[in-house]
Amino acid sequence: MRRPPLDDSMGAFCADSNAYLEGSKTGPLAGLSFAAKDIFDVAGHVTGGGSPDWKATHGPAERTAWAVQTLVEAGATMVGKTVTDELTRGILGENFHGGTPVNPRAPGRVPGGSSSGSAAAVAGGLVDFALGSDTGGSVRAPAAFCGLYGLRPTHGRIPLDGVMVNAPSLDTVGWFAREADVFAGVGAVLLQTETLATRPRHMVIADDAFEVADPAVQEALQPVVEKISSKIGESARGRLAPVPLESLPEHFGAIQGWEAWRSYGDWIDTVDPRLGFEVAVRFLAGRGVTNEVLQAARSIREVMVRHLDEILEDGVVVCLPTMPFPAPPRGLRLSERRVLYERIDSLVGIAGWAGTPQINLPLAEVDGLPVGLSLIGPRGSDEMLISFARELASL
Amino acid sequence: MRRPPLDDSMGAFCADSNAYLEGSKTGPLAGLSFAAKDIFDVAGHVTGGGSPDWKATHGPAERTAWAVQTLVEAGATMVGKTVTDELTRGILGENFHGGTPVNPRAPGRVPGGSSSGSAAAVAGGLVDFALGSDTGGSVRAPAAFCGLYGLRPTHGRIPLDGVMVNAPSLDTVGWFAREADVFAGVGAVLLQTETLATRPRHMVIADDAFEVADPAVQEALQPVVEKISSKIGESARGRLAPVPLESLPEHFGAIQGWEAWRSYGDWIDTVDPRLGFEVAVRFLAGRGVTNEVLQAARSIREVMVRHLDEILEDGVVVCLPTMPFPAPPRGLRLSERRVLYERIDSLVGIAGWAGTPQINLPLAEVDGLPVGLSLIGPRGSDEMLISFARELASL
Repeated sequence: MRRPPLDDSMGAFCADSNAYLEGSKTGPLAGLSFAAKDIFDVAGHVTGGGSPDWKATHGPAERTAWAVQTLVEAGATMVGKTVTDELTRGILGENFHGGTPVNPRAPGRVPGGSSSGSAAAVAGGLVDFALGSDTGGSVRAPAAFCGLYGLRPTHGRIPLDGVMVNAPSLDTVGWFAREADVFAGVGAVLLQTETLATRPRHMVIADDAFEVADPAVQEALQPVVEKISSKIGESARGRLAPVPLESLPEHFGAIQGWEAWRSYGDWIDTVDPRLGFEVAVRFLAGRGVTNEVLQAARSIREVMVRHLDEILEDGVVVCLPTMPFPAPPRGLRLSERRVLYERIDSLVGIAGWAGTPQINLPLAEVDGLPVGLSLIGPRGSDEMLISFARELASL
Repeated sequence: MRRPPLDDSMGAFCADSNAYLEGSKTGPLAGLSFAAKDIFDVAGHVTGGGSPDWKATHGPAERTAWAVQTLVEAGATMVGKTVTDELTRGILGENFHGGTPVNPRAPGRVPGGSSSGSAAAVAGGLVDFALGSDTGGSVRAPAAFCGLYGLRPTHGRIPLDGVMVNAPSLDTVGWFAREADVFAGVGAVLLQTETLATRPRHMVIADDAFEVADPAVQEALQPVVEKISSKIGESARGRLAPVPLESLPEHFGAIQGWEAWRSYGDWIDTVDPRLGFEVAVRFLAGRGVTNEVLQAARSIREVMVRHLDEILEDGVVVCLPTMPFPAPPRGLRLSERRVLYERIDSLVGIAGWAGTPQINLPLAEVDGLPVGLSLIGPRGSDEMLISFARELASL
């Protein structure tokens, strides 16, 4: 088969992307196309990670990332690599140099990041699904902002072989799709399992998380919450955390920043790479994390994870707004963005810490802009979340 | 006259430099060629400042910088714009993206910065002289490392019209030449004066500054100091500062960093530009300077300037090593460079604070590498320094 020209009307693909892998003729995903965030290795291609200097200082990958290879063997054709926030360190998807992908569902607004191009390519109909990664919200944010199904899987569930590291205790491989059926089909391949028709038996509505969201978002999600509650049959109000969620971002930042500096500090020290100012500030903050600050953050992480584990008995899910607001406008100043980050981190940090799966359900809108409801399940409940998402889609 | 092709065997010129201004046929500099650091405006060209994002977010200059225009009217032909450290915030001249110019006098070593390309172009014989700027050593360092005459003039002496701002209380326009006669000729034009054959009447040898330098540098400069002493006829040992020089760099940094953030903070906040990591760290430090830290630094500055002014009576010069070592190797790690910066700043900061002129005399070598002796004179004594440099060169 001749390789078709790449449609990039969304600015979703890397400018020099020519990584193309024909899917096998047979397999459950035969006939589907996908794209992969440019942190996934493809043999013979240099992985760019959204950083021209990273790309310039590394050679071609020797092997193809496990996730990409597995999807191709399952029949899906990879058509290209997608734009990512620099070294995955962004949540809005704005990239001065790589270009900010279009949010097909919210023109003039950011696509969300760091898996920005993957979400834009799927939302824009350029591919059937796409691979991303989620360390601190990088699948969940773009899924919510672009109106897509997106899963942050159980930590460690999908192999990270051939994927650029960010913060190892938090890194996961995730994916996006417009259709719940396609989403589930990809999940069965990546999770190497059957997604059985299981359903949560109880849902906790996280009041503290809803309070972080804009009133319009709370209101738009209310009917979805009610529909799901009635479907499950049993729900209760509760809290995502035993402390105010707004008190946690600095601790999330300490752990992620410290780990990210361990991942990239030596390269930064050697190369003096050109980084977006905001990204440089994040790395510098990570470099400055003292042992005391790190230990304090880790203690708080333990307490938060214990609290979430107590809630998440077998078959229980917690529901919360995926993002506190719809996709923000493009081109905000750094000082304006900082306020947004605090609120986003308040919502995405805890599942990251706990290693629990979280799925975005693209079932609501505010003024025509997508907003998403999330379900967090116990570690290992990825299949249940995917299966239930499919059931809800068919209502 | 047809414009000749640009020789850039030193990597000294901006890759896309096509700023060419034919000198007037008559005038004291007729027949000479020069280059200007890419922070000097040339009408119709975008000034890049060593930052691709600065260039991308600015339009062409409407007017040509005063210094460039004045030189062209005096007969010199400008052949191109030269590489600079990003937004002039570097002292070694290493630029991952713009490329590090060759140091023609010290292969494998840095040219010095931030006026790196201007120094390389002159030292490599590509032009007769070149314009640079000096806020915290950006003419003095490359002059010393490349073995050139270079002057940081009296603050305010040469108009900064059409030159990118860094730290206004410290910024100056300077220039480089291989030959003392050419250097003096350019000075007469830029200072709009005759450089009379004047000579210092007394020299203070700054022991504390010599102690900052490598022993080999001290030794290499000793015969030059003796020669100059005997020429002047009167010298004494003294100190550049009443406190250890090593205690000052943090205060230099506070003032320069604070001013630089005032110059660039709004642009950075708006654009989130991609900057070299080290440059981003410098801007971030400037952003973080508190009012207390700034006031403390300003108080110390006052004391240091008063001390220097007391030494620098009319006709007195202070001599010191321009740089503490010959040009360091290219490609050092950021953590290795930091140690060098402290020592460099210990030597270049005080004349910057005081606004006094300082000239580099390229009259010594260590293992074949250029090292320079500096003379600092009272504010307004630029002509004396230039004239004396010419006298010393003819010995």
